[in-house]
Order: sequence, then structure tokens, then C-alpha cells
Amino acid sequence: MHMSPSHDPSIASDPYLSIADAETLILTREDIRQMVLQTGLDVLMDEMIARLTAAMSTFRAEDASIPSRQGFRYTHPAPGLIEWMPCMSDGGGRATIKIVGYHPSNSGERNLPTILSTVSAYDTTSGHLICMMDATLITALRTGAVSAIASRLMASPRSTTLGIIGAGAQAVTQLHAVSRVLDIDRVVVYDHDPFALSTFPLRTRTVSGHLDVKSASCDQVVESADVLCTVTSVGVGDGPVFNGVEPKPWLHVNAVGSDLPGKTELPLALLHRSFVCPDFRNQAIEEGECQLMPPEKIGPNLFELVQNSEKYRFVQEGLSVFDSTGWALEDEVAMTLFMELAAEFNLGMQLPIENVTTDALNPYHFAT
Amino acid sequence: MHMSPSHDPSIASDPYLSIADAETLILTREDIRQMVLQTGLDVLMDEMIARLTAAMSTFRAEDASIPSRQGFRYTHPAPGLIEWMPCMSDGGGRATIKIVGYHPSNSGERNLPTILSTVSAYDTTSGHLICMMDATLITALRTGAVSAIASRLMASPRSTTLGIIGAGAQAVTQLHAVSRVLDIDRVVVYDHDPFALSTFPLRTRTVSGHLDVKSASCDQVVESADVLCTVTSVGVGDGPVFNGVEPKPWLHVNAVGSDLPGKTELPLALLHRSFVCPDFRNQAIEEGECQLMPPEKIGPNLFELVQNSEKYRFVQEGLSVFDSTGWALEDEVAMTLFMELAAEFNLGMQLPIENVTTDALNPYHFAT
Repeated sequence: MHMSPSHDPSIASDPYLSIADAETLILTREDIRQMVLQTGLDVLMDEMIARLTAAMSTFRAEDASIPSRQGFRYTHPAPGLIEWMPCMSDGGGRATIKIVGYHPSNSGERNLPTILSTVSAYDTTSGHLICMMDATLITALRTGAVSAIASRLMASPRSTTLGIIGAGAQAVTQLHAVSRVLDIDRVVVYDHDPFALSTFPLRTRTVSGHLDVKSASCDQVVESADVLCTVTSVGVGDGPVFNGVEPKPWLHVNAVGSDLPGKTELPLALLHRSFVCPDFRNQAIEEGECQLMPPEKIGPNLFELVQNSEKYRFVQEGLSVFDSTGWALEDEVAMTLFMELAAEFNLGMQLPIENVTTDALNPYHFAT
Repeated sequence: MHMSPSHDPSIASDPYLSIADAETLILTREDIRQMVLQTGLDVLMDEMIARLTAAMSTFRAEDASIPSRQGFRYTHPAPGLIEWMPCMSDGGGRATIKIVGYHPSNSGERNLPTILSTVSAYDTTSGHLICMMDATLITALRTGAVSAIASRLMASPRSTTLGIIGAGAQAVTQLHAVSRVLDIDRVVVYDHDPFALSTFPLRTRTVSGHLDVKSASCDQVVESADVLCTVTSVGVGDGPVFNGVEPKPWLHVNAVGSDLPGKTELPLALLHRSFVCPDFRNQAIEEGECQLMPPEKIGPNLFELVQNSEKYRFVQEGLSVFDSTGWALEDEVAMTLFMELAAEFNLGMQLPIENVTTDALNPYHFAT
């Protein structure tokens, strides 16, 4: 991948090109596969981490509009939710909207990922739909990448053991991303589902060939970890996913699973002893571990740590928690990367979806 | 079109068919064109009116989740907004989300419709994206159809003259729809833009061949109308679009243009003398003519009139206003119709967009 700063793909830089013919770039899962294979997983993850870091380092809340996600939550026909995550980060130019479904029975009952998602980009000059693509992989990649950024800032730089609780799809990119920024040599994993647990080494072998990946009891995972990722589908009100076990005094936790009111993963006592950094405070208070925290005990947002890393270096000495609920800015950054890759590799198809015409005032133009 | 009650297209009735291969039906503007041409505009509009009436007659708020639309509103690079309109109407099964852009400078500066839109349907069992299609035409069609329903219920049955203020794209379907349910023989139109005004007869000739379509001054339009559609892009704070003119005592107004806080079309005095029925009260209070109304003076929602037409027949004798801001249920009904037409005519393409796999727990499945 040659993503030099001068790289300037037409799709990303000239929305008017797409407006002129009003076509929409559709990237299929085969396009995504080609981009990943041609780029390589390590290069892709490193690029995702670098771009997310860059986006956070220049982020200014006053230039962005990123409302808390909203959605439909239901228990029938199966428990699940469909949420929309809009983002307009640069004060104009482009807006992205990710639609994400979370259906924990998918993998067991339908052999589909728990998280299914697509993301769309709109030109804010005209409202034109520029691009629509899969965001299932994007979601996993950026969720891993943001844990890596948090771990680099908050975990002890001497961390060597990564603990993982919950060995599903999201755990794969957590392992990959965190091991790209810390000198991890050992991974200990727990899942209450024996199938997920037993298949984890095979599922991660491409990105963990140099690592010793072992399963362990939940308590052993917590006790031995320097960095811990909790990546579970714990039910609402069923948390915490571990308790009554003393971690290392410098443990950093990436708490990834919380994404619903009432759904939390960590013991209250650990939260109260830790420096807690949310990805997006307003959303974390509604859906993340921060639900359990008094507002005055919640630390700064991750982008503030990125922008003031020296000031917060002390966090690496003690207990810390990154409360990752998923921030729409991450999706926008990830989508832009894949749109640029599509241009570089000439992938995707341009489809004339919106019903535009040379007679803009006539919705019945094709019948007159 | 043979849309008998037993019509049972696989796409609409069996979402599992799509889930199994996790493909997404994409309908392009050419597919839409084929559906419209093969169906015929009159049959299509009649079907839209019939289905919307049916959906409203069985609508129960407690079975639906239709949040007020939200969006990005901005003035740079051009004044506009991008909004999301989610709808889950039947207590599960399917959710739809329409994304709609409103950019008044589109037609003048980019030869694009002011309204550009797409709509997507999701299976609520799995979160799978079932279908994505243009909603530019759908928006125009359903906005016309719902004005027809309101006019049939609230206008005098002896109405023969239709007045239109604002001769843009939405005016075409207003004329078409209202003339399908009332014995309109004369249409008087005003637009401050001479181009829009002069081209209106040509743009509507397919659906107004039997009508006498004439331009007139704004005051003449208001004075002569039995039914009036205001379909303008009036600026925020620039309303009302007419004032100081006495309408017929039985005038029914379909106020279609209001869709922003501060953007209203009608004189306060007329609203205060009229029976005012919003499409969706909560949204109309934020964005419609109802912004100007004390809450206790706002009448029932349109679906309540549909469900109690005898009770509200008295409205036909006096002044009435339908405050049409655009209700997501209308888009869901319209989308379902087009999905069924696509199945009937075997149109659209199934694309594998979501990154699903036989190994649902492995986002890196294609690289292992």
C-alpha cells in the first residue's frame, strides 16, 4: 500500500466527479476482500491506527457534529438492535452514516456475524450518496485500532501479556491491533462458549503467528494480564463478566462489549479504582461502563489523551479503563481509508441509484 | 399491475431467503423507471394512495417505533440538510431508514433535484440489509399521495379548482395525486421563479391532459382555489408565502413545504381559523406549520382522521390545513410497494455487500 500524503484519489478528493453523473460507488464484500489481501492485514491495521490517531489529534468538537447513536431495540423476533451512527466531522464536505445491527443469536442460529453493518457517505453540497459499503469488517478493524491507541497511551509500555475475555469476532481484531503497538508475547483467552474458545487460535493464526495463545479460566486471564480486552455479548444486567479477583496494579482494560443501557462488563470496584477514559463521553454515560460511574469520576475522552499524551503519561503506572462504545468518527476515518483503497486498486462499481435527471424539476421525467 | 391480495413476492414475504445468502437487492433508477413505465403513473399513484390509506387505517402507535427525524443542518458549503427517517411500524420484522437530503440550490446550480434520497430495509431478526433503492421518486410520490388522502377527507367534495404555490418537482405529484381523488378540472399555479412556472404545464402534461393548467398571481391562486397546495422552498423566517387575501370559506390547504424549524408557509391568521391536521404531531410541532400553533389548537393526526372519517366529516365544510412534514411510515409503505414491483417484474440486482462468511466469528476469514 502506498498511501503517501500526496495520494489523492479522485473519489475522495472530488465529490463533484460523482455528482456530475450522480452515481454511487458500491463496494461488495469481494471488493473488501481484494483490498485486504492486496494491502495485507498488518499494513491495514497499522494504517487504521495511524489515521485514527491523526484524526483524534486534530479533532475539535466545535467543528464536528456527531450525535449519540440512536436505534431500534427489541426483543422480538430475537433480541437485538439496529442503530444509526451519523458523523459530520470536518465542518462540511462529507457526512457518513453507519447502520449497525447487533444480534447476539446470529452466530449460533444463523451463522451470521453478531454485528452486521453498512456505511454510507454523502456529499453535503448536494445530498448525493457518494458511496455505500460493508462496515462489518470496518467495525471490527476500527474497534481493534482504537483499543490499540488507548493501550499505547494508558497501558504499561512493559506489557507483555494480553488477556481476552470473550473470544468472538471482535476479539480477533483486538488481539491483532493491541499486538501491533505493544510487545505482546503471550495471549490468554477465556470464553464461556467452548466452541468460540477452542477455535480462537485458528481464527487468529494469521495475525498471531509469533504469539503464544492459550486458553485459561476467567480469573486466570484477569490475574495474568497486563492488558485486558473484554469483548463479550454479556446480557443486560448480567455483568460484570469477572469479579473478586485482584489484577496487576498496572492493568489496562479495553472494555469493548458495553453498548446497551444496563449492559456493562467490569466490576464497579475496579472502575472506581481506575482512570476511566471513554471514547465519547455522552454515549458512554448512556451505554458504556460509564453508566456505573459518577460523572465527576469519568476521565477525559480518548481524543483528549491523544492531544495531551505527556500530561496523561502517569496513567500508565496504575489501573486504567478505556470505555469503548464505538464512536462514529472512527467509522468515518475507516470508510475514507477503504474508499481511497478502492480508488487505488480500481475496485467497486458505480451504480446510478438516485433518480436524477436532466430535468431536475420533474420527478416524472421518464414518463413525459 | 396485478397486486392481488394473494400476491406474495419472495423478497417481501421471506426475508430468510435474503439472509441465507446475505445479499442486498439494489434497485437503480433504471429499475425504478421500468417499474413506473410498466405500471403506469395513474395505477401507481392510485396504489400508493390505497396502500397509505390502508396503513393509516390500521396504524397503532403502540405497535410502531417512528422517532422524529434528525439530521445535519448546515449553511456551508451551501444551505442544506441531510436527515435520517427511521421507521419500524409493525412491531418487528422489518425496519426502514430513509436518508434524505434537502439542498435548495441543487436545481439552479447543479441541475439536481432539491430532494435526493435513498431508502434501506433491514431484517430485524439479523440486522441484514435486505434492500437499498432510490427514494427521490418515492418521496415525491408518497408526498403527493398523502396530500390526496388529506384532501379526500378534509376538502369539499365539490372542489374543482386546485391552486398550487411553488411549481417545482414536488408540485408535479401534488397535482397528480389530488386530481386522482377529487373532480379537479382547473389548476392555477404560481411560482416566483418564471422558469419553474413556465415549464410546469409541460412537466405535468402526462398526468394533467384533461386539466386546464394556467399560471396566475399568488393572490389569484389563493382566491380561486378549492384546494391549495403550498410546495415552496421558502427560506427560514421568510414565510408566509401569501397573506392578506381572503380564500373561499371551504378552502383546504395541503402545506407541504415546511420541513425546518422557522420555515413555515401559511399566514398565522389562516391557521388560527382552520382545522389543522398534522401528519405526525411531534414532528409538525418542530418543523411544520404547527410550530406557529398553540398545542391545544392542533387537531388530530391524519391517521386518526382516516380511522374516524365520519366523525370528522364536518371539516369539509370549513377551512382546513393538512400540515405535511413527511412521515417515515409513508416511506416504508412506498418502499414495500416498489420491492413488490421489483419482484413482480424481476428487476434489480442482488449484491453481496455485507462481509458475511461461513465462519461468523472470524472477520479475517478471507485471510486465514
